[in-house]
Amino acid sequence: MPFGVGVIGVGTVGGGVVETLLRNREAISARAGLDICLTHVAETDLGRLEEFDLDGVTVSTDASALIADPNVNVVVELIGGLGAAKTFILEALAAKKSVVTANKMLLAHCGPELTRAAGDSGVELHYEAAVAGAIPFIKALREGLVANEIGSVYGILNGTCNYILSQMTYKGLEFDDALAQAVELGFAERPPDLDIEGHDTAHKCQIIASLCYSTPISLDDIHVEGVTRVKRVDVIYARELGYLIKLLAIIRQVDGAVEARVHPTLVPETHLLASVRNEFNAIYVQSDIADVTMYYGRGAGRMPTASAVIADVVDVARRGDFPPMPAFVYTQTLPIRGMDMLEGRYYLRVSTQDRPGALGRICGVLGEHEINIASCFQRESTESDLVHVVLITHKTAETAGRVAVDEIDQLGFVQGATQMLRVL
Amino acid sequence: MPFGVGVIGVGTVGGGVVETLLRNREAISARAGLDICLTHVAETDLGRLEEFDLDGVTVSTDASALIADPNVNVVVELIGGLGAAKTFILEALAAKKSVVTANKMLLAHCGPELTRAAGDSGVELHYEAAVAGAIPFIKALREGLVANEIGSVYGILNGTCNYILSQMTYKGLEFDDALAQAVELGFAERPPDLDIEGHDTAHKCQIIASLCYSTPISLDDIHVEGVTRVKRVDVIYARELGYLIKLLAIIRQVDGAVEARVHPTLVPETHLLASVRNEFNAIYVQSDIADVTMYYGRGAGRMPTASAVIADVVDVARRGDFPPMPAFVYTQTLPIRGMDMLEGRYYLRVSTQDRPGALGRICGVLGEHEINIASCFQRESTESDLVHVVLITHKTAETAGRVAVDEIDQLGFVQGATQMLRVL
Repeated sequence: MPFGVGVIGVGTVGGGVVETLLRNREAISARAGLDICLTHVAETDLGRLEEFDLDGVTVSTDASALIADPNVNVVVELIGGLGAAKTFILEALAAKKSVVTANKMLLAHCGPELTRAAGDSGVELHYEAAVAGAIPFIKALREGLVANEIGSVYGILNGTCNYILSQMTYKGLEFDDALAQAVELGFAERPPDLDIEGHDTAHKCQIIASLCYSTPISLDDIHVEGVTRVKRVDVIYARELGYLIKLLAIIRQVDGAVEARVHPTLVPETHLLASVRNEFNAIYVQSDIADVTMYYGRGAGRMPTASAVIADVVDVARRGDFPPMPAFVYTQTLPIRGMDMLEGRYYLRVSTQDRPGALGRICGVLGEHEINIASCFQRESTESDLVHVVLITHKTAETAGRVAVDEIDQLGFVQGATQMLRVL
Repeated sequence: MPFGVGVIGVGTVGGGVVETLLRNREAISARAGLDICLTHVAETDLGRLEEFDLDGVTVSTDASALIADPNVNVVVELIGGLGAAKTFILEALAAKKSVVTANKMLLAHCGPELTRAAGDSGVELHYEAAVAGAIPFIKALREGLVANEIGSVYGILNGTCNYILSQMTYKGLEFDDALAQAVELGFAERPPDLDIEGHDTAHKCQIIASLCYSTPISLDDIHVEGVTRVKRVDVIYARELGYLIKLLAIIRQVDGAVEARVHPTLVPETHLLASVRNEFNAIYVQSDIADVTMYYGRGAGRMPTASAVIADVVDVARRGDFPPMPAFVYTQTLPIRGMDMLEGRYYLRVSTQDRPGALGRICGVLGEHEINIASCFQRESTESDLVHVVLITHKTAETAGRVAVDEIDQLGFVQGATQMLRVL
């Protein structure tokens, strides 16, 4: 009796899963040690199925028929979004069928509810593909690092943002041109807002933080800044100072509280994360027993995402009757550490009129707030008659930095808002 | 009833496993969803146990007593070597107990025999810690990439060699000084021959190649060169040309044959592997569905290795009565591709007397063998009155390169053997 796979939604990723299961069935089954077989697909747009040879596979336009099919042992949800996807997942779990999904938005919003439903039915909910695409990171975190307490996680989790920042860094593009290129190459969602405003990264940040610390974290607990505020000059200045700018999800446990945030970050150029270019994703983990580990690969795309989905399918198949492993099981409720608790180093770019005493006054304001300057230079702007004062501070409280920047912005010779970015 | 763990050998790694199981038992058990408990340790040197609080844990000087203990559900072998370790593993498997080991040398020599014994008893043999220490790479390869055909694997698998080459690259040290430092810091085995001659890397190469292609590969099939031949000048010249020198294990499938080799390799500085510094390990995989993935972390050390061992223990515990996953199961016998089949780009450093026509004659010999030069420079040696002619070739057959180098070395004005290194 083969282990039957039902796929709901044959779009980009669903198509990759169907194609791979049909083409590599023999090899996958040999490696898994049991026969893994596509038995059913559900898709409302039948035109999408024309490219596949679905001989012997049941085809439905109704996902409920797939869920009820006794030849379906695992339900793969790949329609995405918060509506029908949730209905079908809950329906499948209620029918005591394990579910595999790549739906990060749904997990970030409703992870606990879905996991409770899985637990009540004694089945599993797997979501390797929801975080960092092809990279087997959820598996590494849950299983490979099972002996570890996680200290911190730094993730490059959105390929579009990393592509844009890489093009600004290595090709000297302005943000808008880099974004246009990402859209053209198909990396960016259309519209790209979820990507570039950081919300897609926040969804993954929520999933990882929940897993790392087994504590409830809502999306509202995560401070989110996207990459739209990063200018080409910041990328250039950062590089001169020995840093690259990356959009990072940062998850840490500090003094028994959980910190989860998403924002552009200056990463030292010798740090391995700085070498992660273009549309690639990577997750850098510090933990107590293994020390540092990093995982790298494609975070999106038809086939890379399918690779992760099928790994989940095989895991479900190989579980047999063994009780499920805890997923979003909240064994504790840790306090959330807000941004007002943050301490760190900061990159500041002040745009000022070129007049005597300006640099001294700016540095003076920082000094009045006990903010120590690690490095500093002034450059003539190529675009105006203003000059840029660029600073990296020593460690300071974020709140003190904010107050100082507000004061600086009120100086008569300062033009526009000062750019303030966090340094890793 | 807890899941009982028996540890044979409480040396460096065994001590890390015992310490972690005692200290993190609650957290590990919560994540695993079942109680994982150290029940028995076997060690001939009882002084090694003094640092641990072994209340409630049975202590033996006889490993057979541990294997026979009904409270031991999994046997962890951490004594190393080819002798007693093999005896105990076979004894445990015959007693129908799954085994976890970090013994790469034993696996590289006797993997098939041990796996057959495990298969005959219906139990598992796990060895995550045998390859790349803390990095959950065996899990990623067997489970995370289960849908994939592996195209190639490039691994930095020996921390000592990578540390030495990094110190030569970034600190300008000569090989001997870098080695002395590695020994002092405890990275290098004593004596360091298995490390620096490449054999430790070859053991891991054998294990990975067997897993990737499910085909028998013996250590004799693997071409091995260590790092002792790499000079500081080579590191410097390579860097000028945009490359870093790394000791790589390279495993590829080419035209249905398997290629497995270990040698110093020039890696482009923009390649992620070039950013893997000091004692760290990394494995870069190209596969058909996931595309490129990379895994990074500590390849050795007490606690990092313990992290991998405990992950294996939990995997065994969570398997329940489900049939084992194939490990070194040979489903095919692929031909081995020898070094005489190799094609690639090469770095050459010729030491020659500084006389008219020398450069022309050297380049002439390459031309006669249809070897095209991609880049070339000549430098005065700082250590003698010789000059160094440094070349990178376009793609050529290794055999042609060898013949040409032999001819070059016979030119009257050439001194010593020409350095020839492969380029990734």
